[in-house]
Amino acid sequence: MPRIITLLTDFGYNDWFVGVMKGVITSIAPESLIIDITHNIKPGDIRSAAFNLMVSYRFFPKGSIHVVVVDPGVGTARKAIVVQTEDMIFIGPDNGVLSWALESTDICRIIELQNPKWFLKNVSNTFHGRDIFAPVAAHIANGIDIQEFGPTVSDYFKLPFPEPTISNYNVTGEILLIDRFGNGITNITDSHLLRTKLEKYKFFANSKFVGRIQQSYGTVPAGKPLVLKGSTGFYEICVNSGSAASMFNLEPKSPVTALLD
Amino acid sequence: MPRIITLLTDFGYNDWFVGVMKGVITSIAPESLIIDITHNIKPGDIRSAAFNLMVSYRFFPKGSIHVVVVDPGVGTARKAIVVQTEDMIFIGPDNGVLSWALESTDICRIIELQNPKWFLKNVSNTFHGRDIFAPVAAHIANGIDIQEFGPTVSDYFKLPFPEPTISNYNVTGEILLIDRFGNGITNITDSHLLRTKLEKYKFFANSKFVGRIQQSYGTVPAGKPLVLKGSTGFYEICVNSGSAASMFNLEPKSPVTALLD
Amino acid sequence: MPRIITLLTDFGYNDWFVGVMKGVITSIAPESLIIDITHNIKPGDIRSAAFNLMVSYRFFPKGSIHVVVVDPGVGTARKAIVVQTEDMIFIGPDNGVLSWALESTDICRIIELQNPKWFLKNVSNTFHGRDIFAPVAAHIANGIDIQEFGPTVSDYFKLPFPEPTISNYNVTGEILLIDRFGNGITNITDSHLLRTKLEKYKFFANSKFVGRIQQSYGTVPAGKPLVLKGSTGFYEICVNSGSAASMFNLEPKSPVTALLD
Repeated sequence: MPRIITLLTDFGYNDWFVGVMKGVITSIAPESLIIDITHNIKPGDIRSAAFNLMVSYRFFPKGSIHVVVVDPGVGTARKAIVVQTEDMIFIGPDNGVLSWALESTDICRIIELQNPKWFLKNVSNTFHGRDIFAPVAAHIANGIDIQEFGPTVSDYFKLPFPEPTISNYNVTGEILLIDRFGNGITNITDSHLLRTKLEKYKFFANSKFVGRIQQSYGTVPAGKPLVLKGSTGFYEICVNSGSAASMFNLEPKSPVTALLD
Repeated sequence: MPRIITLLTDFGYNDWFVGVMKGVITSIAPESLIIDITHNIKPGDIRSAAFNLMVSYRFFPKGSIHVVVVDPGVGTARKAIVVQTEDMIFIGPDNGVLSWALESTDICRIIELQNPKWFLKNVSNTFHGRDIFAPVAAHIANGIDIQEFGPTVSDYFKLPFPEPTISNYNVTGEILLIDRFGNGITNITDSHLLRTKLEKYKFFANSKFVGRIQQSYGTVPAGKPLVLKGSTGFYEICVNSGSAASMFNLEPKSPVTALLD
Repeated sequence: MPRIITLLTDFGYNDWFVGVMKGVITSIAPESLIIDITHNIKPGDIRSAAFNLMVSYRFFPKGSIHVVVVDPGVGTARKAIVVQTEDMIFIGPDNGVLSWALESTDICRIIELQNPKWFLKNVSNTFHGRDIFAPVAAHIANGIDIQEFGPTVSDYFKLPFPEPTISNYNVTGEILLIDRFGNGITNITDSHLLRTKLEKYKFFANSKFVGRIQQSYGTVPAGKPLVLKGSTGFYEICVNSGSAASMFNLEPKSPVTALLD
């Protein structure tokens, strides 16, 4: 079975950046299997990258190596780390991109990437994806112990996860991310709602009434808004065959409330 | 030889959706080879997905598994099917996305996907690409007989293909799809034209004169319109080094006529 | 070790073009490993494709096959060529797309693609990526000698590389390419500057003052412009956490000067 290396970056699809990372990986670990999560994270949007990783890593085989390069601090003193958990390896800058995924894992070791022996020969100040993260991932795929890459560190930078607040059974949350369909993914899950009264909640986004929780898009007419439990477990503000982001003017951090009837 | 699984969706490139499908497939069938057709089908655009599949599936090796997830009815009562033809396997919602490709195949069996044994454990109501279609494709790549997935059904939903009409040798058709270059792909093929008089046809799009059939872009100056027999066999409204969609205000279903001089 | 085939095209991500090329390659050479450089080259932008290839090819393993299809002259008399260098194989139309990469290689042989035995059966006039370049790349991956594809030719079309001019130690250059982050990549390298006085250069773009050479984005506040030595070796006009292209209205060929203080 090939060793999986996933890539999640803000490098986009217009340039050679991702292709070159794959060239570097394949030069070192030709039998690894590289899978793109996405490369269209908004430049420098650590929060969006953290979310994408959090909701996707667990669908990959045990032993997968997850490389995240959303790295506005590249070339500064920010650390680069590799984190070994019970099931996976995570690699990236220590700026929080890994942290939402790591919260639900059992961490075994955290190593700071310091040993240039495992990097490309000339490390640039602007493209550690190519010069550090890609070769390190490839060497791990080849079986190099992560201890080789540098010293153990005791902790990693944790990006605060925006938890909803609950008062009188009413939930006040926010939009985490707008997806490709214009769905507004909220930070509200089943754990914040009364499970026996799910049909009693009225959802509001940007103070406008959206609707109640439905079972599928098709339960409301095309063009009408609804609330769905998304495939990530977070409730989503949706429009059947339309864009909730447009209808409710949603963006990350837009307020969402669920009021118990 | 690895088993090919192609993916054709409207999931876009901004989110984790496609990456997670690949994670699921690779977890089950690590030796399969996944190839993207495109993921930028306009959300819910069944017609465009049907066209993309129709013009691409035959270029893949015999035995390839083609997974199409353009599925606005996800979570409703619409069926999910797998279709075995003489050369290929097709998987998708039974909403017509497979139908234009299937028209030119010899169908052996149609199975409705019903047996949750082969799905992910918790099937969501919004992401059957991850929970049903990806694992089923992977199990087929592993050699599972499609009979395992559910009951045989006798037919599938056929999206009507817009055939041109012919009157007095004049052909009235329409635009099927605008491609990345702004070419307007029509539904007119050699079968609708008099083969010995191809140079006698004058093409009009949205009632504006385009030009006659040429052999290549380079036969007209840059910026000038022309008609080419496209690589799919359909005639295309083109502009050399430019966008016919912009020049003639084309979109899917825009009228196109070919008048015999 | 699988044989690498890289793809660099202007086919975009909305259509089936790239997927079908991969289908053709995989049908002929199932064990090859296909890696995308990018497919979002602006339609027909030979200069941008030449740059992308020049800065990426060397990061792939020896023996890699680099296929470039940015081919506005498809179907005309322009030649299609395969170039064998000491380390790599390059395939594409002979319109200059390969030339900036080839300048830094040792060329062994140049062959014109003429022998239809190695093409798809029906070669279209508009999609040589599918009908000629993909199958030829796959046959090379299978070990076919490039001599089989056609006659040796003595030279290839060279796209002039825009070299900066130097006068009184002041350098006058231009923007080569805008990347995904809005960085303006110039044609100025260390070879044009006095190495002991790098901090003495003031950079101007479109006649507006940008700043001096810095070591990383983080050395200036967010939103402020700076100059960085990019990961390709070319100096770049940048804005920390912002778009230099927007701030300085940059596009390819915009003038850039570096004045010695």
